[in-house]
Amino acid sequence: MKISARNCIKGTIKSITKGPIMAEIVLDIGNGVQITSVITAHATENLGLKEGKEAYAVVKSSEVMIAVD
Amino acid sequence: MKISARNCIKGTIKSITKGPIMAEIVLDIGNGVQITSVITAHATENLGLKEGKEAYAVVKSSEVMIAVD
Amino acid sequence: MKISARNCIKGTIKSITKGPIMAEIVLDIGNGVQITSVITAHATENLGLKEGKEAYAVVKSSEVMIAVD
Amino acid sequence: MKISARNCIKGTIKSITKGPIMAEIVLDIGNGVQITSVITAHATENLGLKEGKEAYAVVKSSEVMIAVD
Amino acid sequence: MKISARNCIKGTIKSITKGPIMAEIVLDIGNGVQITSVITAHATENLGLKEGKEAYAVVKSSEVMIAVD
Amino acid sequence: MKISARNCIKGTIKSITKGPIMAEIVLDIGNGVQITSVITAHATENLGLKEGKEAYAVVKSSEVMIAVD
Repeated sequence: MKISARNCIKGTIKSITKGPIMAEIVLDIGNGVQITSVITAHATENLGLKEGKEAYAVVKSSEVMIAVD
Repeated sequence: MKISARNCIKGTIKSITKGPIMAEIVLDIGNGVQITSVITAHATENLGLKEGKEAYAVVKSSEVMIAVD
Repeated sequence: MKISARNCIKGTIKSITKGPIMAEIVLDIGNGVQITSVITAHATENLGLKEGKEAYAVVKSSEVMIAVD
Repeated sequence: MKISARNCIKGTIKSITKGPIMAEIVLDIGNGVQITSVITAHATENLGLKEGKEAYAVVKSSEVMIAVD
Repeated sequence: MKISARNCIKGTIKSITKGPIMAEIVLDIGNGVQITSVITAHATENLGLKEGKEAYAVVKSSEVMIAVD
Repeated sequence: MKISARNCIKGTIKSITKGPIMAEIVLDIGNGVQITSVITAHATENLGLKEGKEAYAVVKSSEVMIAVD
């Protein structure tokens, strides 16, 4: 499946913290950079996410803000 | 200012394409990875964004999806 | 690719309206129901979207609100 | 109240799963299609949501992505 | 219609700037505070928005970030 | 840090309700108006949020819908 979201960044799952409804996933994308995602706990199970597994952070470009110092 | 958004990734502005209302910004975050953002054209001016300038991609964690092959 | 977004609804592209930065896509998902999406004009080209083509509307569940009469 | 969100899809509430902060709502919109929403637990109470009740899935068009096989 | 979005703030439309796909709306909510919204140009027409007209800024709580100095 | 989000509204933290993954923050922005935010529980700790403390509600303009009576 190809998706319109312009950001699809490969990484390795560093941690998964599951609550009753939501789950927090931290992805290591290399260069000392991590990306934190919050998805539903069900989605975590549907995708069979496990620490150490390869995964992608997917973000629609209209959800990305820009900041400067 | 410190913000609750959990993702704040440093990069260099590679391109800015401005339309009447929105603007597309491509940020090079190293390792051959780019992040595309869509913000308002006004915001681009407010921040004084220019190609080659350092900037951060800021994303709320609840906007980040996870995908697997 | 399998994605954490919990909503992936099949339909047929009814119309594509492209601007300099964004594009509005209307998808017919049957039963007289349409879904309107706004993605970047580049994404429309990347996916080779055309009227009459099959496509999916993909929505992260945390972006879906509920309303009642 | 009329809202700018372009997607307002009628359905029946199939399930409500409440956590301390968030709640997952599954809406049956017919044709074998379901829409999953995550809203706050408070909102679930404010709207008096109950299984079997009629409700709408409301989504801003800029939150809808498009995917193709 | 009652909606799950927890933020519904009344104001007066100060300006409407329309592009081919999107439109930028600035709402004066009193106390010298303005809220800027970006919706589709079609939505602006559907709602009959005009400068000086009363309107509400509606925001899902999961889209609101918190910042501190 | 200056951010592209066009809405940055000052207020006082009225309540913080923390769950295992997410937290609900209610901000009083004066004039009897409150803004509700949902951020991660970690972000609440990172920012040292406390009731009575000054904070800003930050919202990307593309996340703000408009409604009319």
